[in-house]
Amino acid sequence: MTLLYEGKAKRLYDTDEPNIVRMEFKDEATAFNAEKKAVFADKGRLNKAVTLALYKMLEKEGVRTHFYADQDDVNMLVRRVEIVQIELVVRNYVAGSLQKRTGLPEGHKLRQPIVETYYKDDALGDPIINDDHIRELELATPDELAHMREAGLEVNRIMTGFFEKAGMKLVDFKLEYGRLLPDKTEVVLADEISPDTCRLWDLETGEKMDKDRFRQDLGQVMEKYAEVLTRVENAIGS
Amino acid sequence: MTLLYEGKAKRLYDTDEPNIVRMEFKDEATAFNAEKKAVFADKGRLNKAVTLALYKMLEKEGVRTHFYADQDDVNMLVRRVEIVQIELVVRNYVAGSLQKRTGLPEGHKLRQPIVETYYKDDALGDPIINDDHIRELELATPDELAHMREAGLEVNRIMTGFFEKAGMKLVDFKLEYGRLLPDKTEVVLADEISPDTCRLWDLETGEKMDKDRFRQDLGQVMEKYAEVLTRVENAIGS
Repeated sequence: MTLLYEGKAKRLYDTDEPNIVRMEFKDEATAFNAEKKAVFADKGRLNKAVTLALYKMLEKEGVRTHFYADQDDVNMLVRRVEIVQIELVVRNYVAGSLQKRTGLPEGHKLRQPIVETYYKDDALGDPIINDDHIRELELATPDELAHMREAGLEVNRIMTGFFEKAGMKLVDFKLEYGRLLPDKTEVVLADEISPDTCRLWDLETGEKMDKDRFRQDLGQVMEKYAEVLTRVENAIGS
Repeated sequence: MTLLYEGKAKRLYDTDEPNIVRMEFKDEATAFNAEKKAVFADKGRLNKAVTLALYKMLEKEGVRTHFYADQDDVNMLVRRVEIVQIELVVRNYVAGSLQKRTGLPEGHKLRQPIVETYYKDDALGDPIINDDHIRELELATPDELAHMREAGLEVNRIMTGFFEKAGMKLVDFKLEYGRLLPDKTEVVLADEISPDTCRLWDLETGEKMDKDRFRQDLGQVMEKYAEVLTRVENAIGS
């Protein structure tokens, strides 16, 4: 089937259904705007399984996503969307760029969640942007942006509770959204939700169980991704 | 008199009046978070004179500032304020960091002015921040922030027209605000407004007449600052 798009961690393929595409999770990992690269055997399978479990859980809670059906180890079927070129980051604790931006210490608990918007543009290095930049670049309408922000905070409320049940602290995460084709009138959650896109710390020990293990050369990257999957599946079952 | 504060381009001194301070404009220039430094004879005098003329013009238009009285070549008296640790940038055309952030070409006319907020923190490199960061860092109350944004856009409307009369395009500028002592209940415009803090391009030729001449090694830095002063004073007189 025709390859529609290849990103850093996923490939999208056509299917027989015009508005359904196959999303393949790759084993490749990149960090720091693709300056650091590696391949982790089994990453695609683990991230697909975590994304699948979270999408099913979120849909049950009333969150609209582009999920359509599971397919196999590294593939799921999703509804075709036009991706909004904004990455929405929701944060509960200080880590990563928020530490550098604010001078607050890593692990500092935020009084309220912080929402940030980034311009999804590799050539520019995905810079942080505000509502005025979004208006000028016409990346989203004010209504779409308000919806994304509200939906992102709702996903945060649901996932914070869910990950706590799974023995993990949801430090922050990145969401993407897409306009459902062919109408493009509804904006739904899209892309993946996995240890590649969430910072997850063990509730007891504070141990990092996400992509920071790769970014910071902490080792045992896939071991911890596998542990996240086990805990997520147990929390779903419970 | 006691030196209260020394910044990159100004010094503040006590006066006999408890809520009045003397603001001295220095000849030192810095750029790129103080990585580039120079001294320009006469810069202090030129920037003080431009700031003085603009503050008087803005006050006449109803804008509240911390200006109190002129003193001498490089000094003015201002009301004592507690500076809000936010730099407000208002933009009409693309230049500088906005070009890197958006990929839009230098000189691109924005459909509406863009307002940006930066955390005034040298150690962090004055990073761009959004309303959620401001809330977490308690840099300003929501009311103060709304006032600063509204007042900044009003200053932009007034200054855009004024500089056009003076034969210059107001590309963008940085404002600072302060809470008037002793009450701290009123937030007014503070600091300087000069070719150090505004991007000004000749209306006909597009020639840069501001600090970018120093940043980009274009030469004739003080000649152009002096030309800005002449044009500002002529526009005031006309």
